[in-house]
Amino acid sequence: MDLAAFRAALGDIPVEDHPRIVQQKSRDHYWYSPYLKRTLDHVTADLVVSPRTQDEVVTILAAAFRHKVPVTPRGAGTGNYGQAMPLAGGAILNLMALDKVIHIEKDRVRAEAGIILEKLDEATKAAVGGEMRFHPSTYRMASLGGFIAGGSGGVGSIRWGGLRAHGNVLGLKVITCEETPRVLELKGTDILKVAHAYGTNGIIVEAEIPLTAAYDWVDVIAGFDDIMDAVRFSEAVALQDGILLKEIAPVAAPMPYDWFNRHKPMLKPGQSVVLMMAAPAAVEPLAVFMDIWKAEMVYRSDTAAPEVKAKLPPVYELAWNHTTLRGLKIDEGITYLQTQYPSVEHVERMIRLFGEEVPMHLEMIRFDGRVVFAGLPVVRYTTEERLEEIIAIHEANGILVFNPHRCTLEEGGMKKTDRTQLAFKKEADPTGLLNPGKMIAWENPDFNFEDNRAWLFSGLQKAG
Amino acid sequence: MDLAAFRAALGDIPVEDHPRIVQQKSRDHYWYSPYLKRTLDHVTADLVVSPRTQDEVVTILAAAFRHKVPVTPRGAGTGNYGQAMPLAGGAILNLMALDKVIHIEKDRVRAEAGIILEKLDEATKAAVGGEMRFHPSTYRMASLGGFIAGGSGGVGSIRWGGLRAHGNVLGLKVITCEETPRVLELKGTDILKVAHAYGTNGIIVEAEIPLTAAYDWVDVIAGFDDIMDAVRFSEAVALQDGILLKEIAPVAAPMPYDWFNRHKPMLKPGQSVVLMMAAPAAVEPLAVFMDIWKAEMVYRSDTAAPEVKAKLPPVYELAWNHTTLRGLKIDEGITYLQTQYPSVEHVERMIRLFGEEVPMHLEMIRFDGRVVFAGLPVVRYTTEERLEEIIAIHEANGILVFNPHRCTLEEGGMKKTDRTQLAFKKEADPTGLLNPGKMIAWENPDFNFEDNRAWLFSGLQKAG
Repeated sequence: MDLAAFRAALGDIPVEDHPRIVQQKSRDHYWYSPYLKRTLDHVTADLVVSPRTQDEVVTILAAAFRHKVPVTPRGAGTGNYGQAMPLAGGAILNLMALDKVIHIEKDRVRAEAGIILEKLDEATKAAVGGEMRFHPSTYRMASLGGFIAGGSGGVGSIRWGGLRAHGNVLGLKVITCEETPRVLELKGTDILKVAHAYGTNGIIVEAEIPLTAAYDWVDVIAGFDDIMDAVRFSEAVALQDGILLKEIAPVAAPMPYDWFNRHKPMLKPGQSVVLMMAAPAAVEPLAVFMDIWKAEMVYRSDTAAPEVKAKLPPVYELAWNHTTLRGLKIDEGITYLQTQYPSVEHVERMIRLFGEEVPMHLEMIRFDGRVVFAGLPVVRYTTEERLEEIIAIHEANGILVFNPHRCTLEEGGMKKTDRTQLAFKKEADPTGLLNPGKMIAWENPDFNFEDNRAWLFSGLQKAG
Repeated sequence: MDLAAFRAALGDIPVEDHPRIVQQKSRDHYWYSPYLKRTLDHVTADLVVSPRTQDEVVTILAAAFRHKVPVTPRGAGTGNYGQAMPLAGGAILNLMALDKVIHIEKDRVRAEAGIILEKLDEATKAAVGGEMRFHPSTYRMASLGGFIAGGSGGVGSIRWGGLRAHGNVLGLKVITCEETPRVLELKGTDILKVAHAYGTNGIIVEAEIPLTAAYDWVDVIAGFDDIMDAVRFSEAVALQDGILLKEIAPVAAPMPYDWFNRHKPMLKPGQSVVLMMAAPAAVEPLAVFMDIWKAEMVYRSDTAAPEVKAKLPPVYELAWNHTTLRGLKIDEGITYLQTQYPSVEHVERMIRLFGEEVPMHLEMIRFDGRVVFAGLPVVRYTTEERLEEIIAIHEANGILVFNPHRCTLEEGGMKKTDRTQLAFKKEADPTGLLNPGKMIAWENPDFNFEDNRAWLFSGLQKAG
């Protein structure tokens, strides 16, 4: 790569090369994983480019192509898989200045990739009383483009399923990395070419997503003495068609009392909880349903005293990867897994098998129209070997593991290559400059996933 | 009963006793069933009372109690099970003048029982951009109270399940039939005491229901050569979490071409269809999904020429019991069943077994959080015996039949008594004056449903 020529070609597009700032912008939340922390800690780009317009993105990608500069796109850097880390150095493409709302209709919005999700919702709520169908727990920091390129679902997925389900993204504007970059409008199934592809095969600069009715969601925390009662209640309430919930997450003792600092006064040691968000009209039916299940009403935000409520984070910031984050703040010795359990029996088997070593945290979601148990169980970490063993035991028990201790698409996903994404990379990034090292199929088409060994990116830091 | 004393006690509350008008108001759509037509055709009340206020309802019920006058409540009379027919004569309580909206909030509405559903939606759309979660195909005629007392779900149930699911009704105001009628506010599980109880144990005068986001729903009709492809597509699209549909109904050939007169120009003989209503943002993803399934786009209202669209009824008026109604207008020799199939294989088995005799019509709904096949198959009617035989064959094949050829709660439902509703009748209607003859458990607690014989109300027309 010819960095000097690259910089020269950028004109007045803002470039940052102060090593501390570049290092800062070369990181995401990869440190949730001890393995990623060890292997990626030294990764850094050479500079950060921050386009202010989509035309500037075209200029940057043309210059990168000509001067062979690797380009790793970045939103807010809230991902946990090292997906925004520049394994081959080069440029970080910081898209946060592309934050315009393009247009809002009654049931959809189009905006630029860098807009923060909470800001996007503020705009659509004000305009049409609508909000995104679902969002990550990093709602107040994460960007729209980063969510689509690096996320999969989140708060709201119990109603709407995941990002890659038909209809949850309506359109994407993508810029290719070629001699003359093309600006493509992807619709329909073409969206899947770049959704959750970590920006390896095109830069998402604009997205159109559907809206749903915005509500002043009420935070509800249900308490249980036994985590399995919490889990069974969670499935049952998820199957209640008439009780509109946006979030259902059972979290096992001792995590709630030990980690949810602000909520501690209302929790008991040894108490497992279910974190929920209910539409206002659903709160009373939910309370009735909790009574039937003998669940304790630990907290409901609609009747909480204002001075109590003001001190509490929203319940979604206790859920998803925020559960893990709160744990890490108190106990650096933990990490986590991402799992999916075919049935409540599978959940129970893992709880009995691992006990205190793997405290259970589930997220109820819909997948292909069915309520399923997604998991973000915490792991009290000892060694890399034991972590691998824990994963292997899960898999041997028929539980899907999406390994969050790998930064490649394949290893963190279904352990196979998405042929559509690979084919699109050949078109849109023919020289492989976009987010190098994240799509194994590009670098090493013959890699054998059966070996159960981590893939090593040969280019890691080649340019660093 | 002492009708003269009853009338005298009513003061200036409007009463109608012209025989033709009383007979007209003594009927619902019972004539969908040849059995109900034969057995109920002569049923008529003695007079019709039309209260203008809830206080007048109290006056009427106190007078009815004192003078032993049976009272059968009535909304728009669009039910199909004879549920609004006055089996013991007496008074029809016409509630259509109680049609006020009480209050509207962002996600709920409270209104009087007699309001027409379409009018209710017009009010909530204008006020907060919200609409009912689901409604019957008789949306433009049926009343709120009639729907809750006599319905079970409908257009929208694919998203929200049924009327009796937790959270789909938030509150009911009910007036009892006692010496001093009480005005009760039912909430939570108490709602189930009177929901779908045909007004046998209290008169619903007000209801509070949740709202969801209102959309300009787009009518879409998909065409298939084979009904089983239409059925499989319907299940698959119902499981698409990201494609927001309010209605999914497969209707087998030859019904669409033969019966959907206004749509005929766009249909082919021998074509089976799936009737759908899609949110605007869901239409393109739905079109993509139809392409994947090789479904023909027969019609979509968002791109139809205005002069074409103006001549067509909304798609929901081709679905639910409107399918049957359209059939009856052309062929008096048909009737129908109400069924629920455990799987697509059960649907297929019935199609193969009965062929032309029982053309298939399904409604995809959610029930307890799962997508299921509700059925309203048409029956080419020959004799009562053959109809019973067809029902028996369905049941022998593990298919639930909710017999629409019976006017009692039990026989049209689960063939067992709802103990909660019975207990509430003892409190709220101790002398059994409300809609007599519809709750078998009240009249004949020892009736044996295993016999498979229709129950005969001993009081039928006793007072007529």
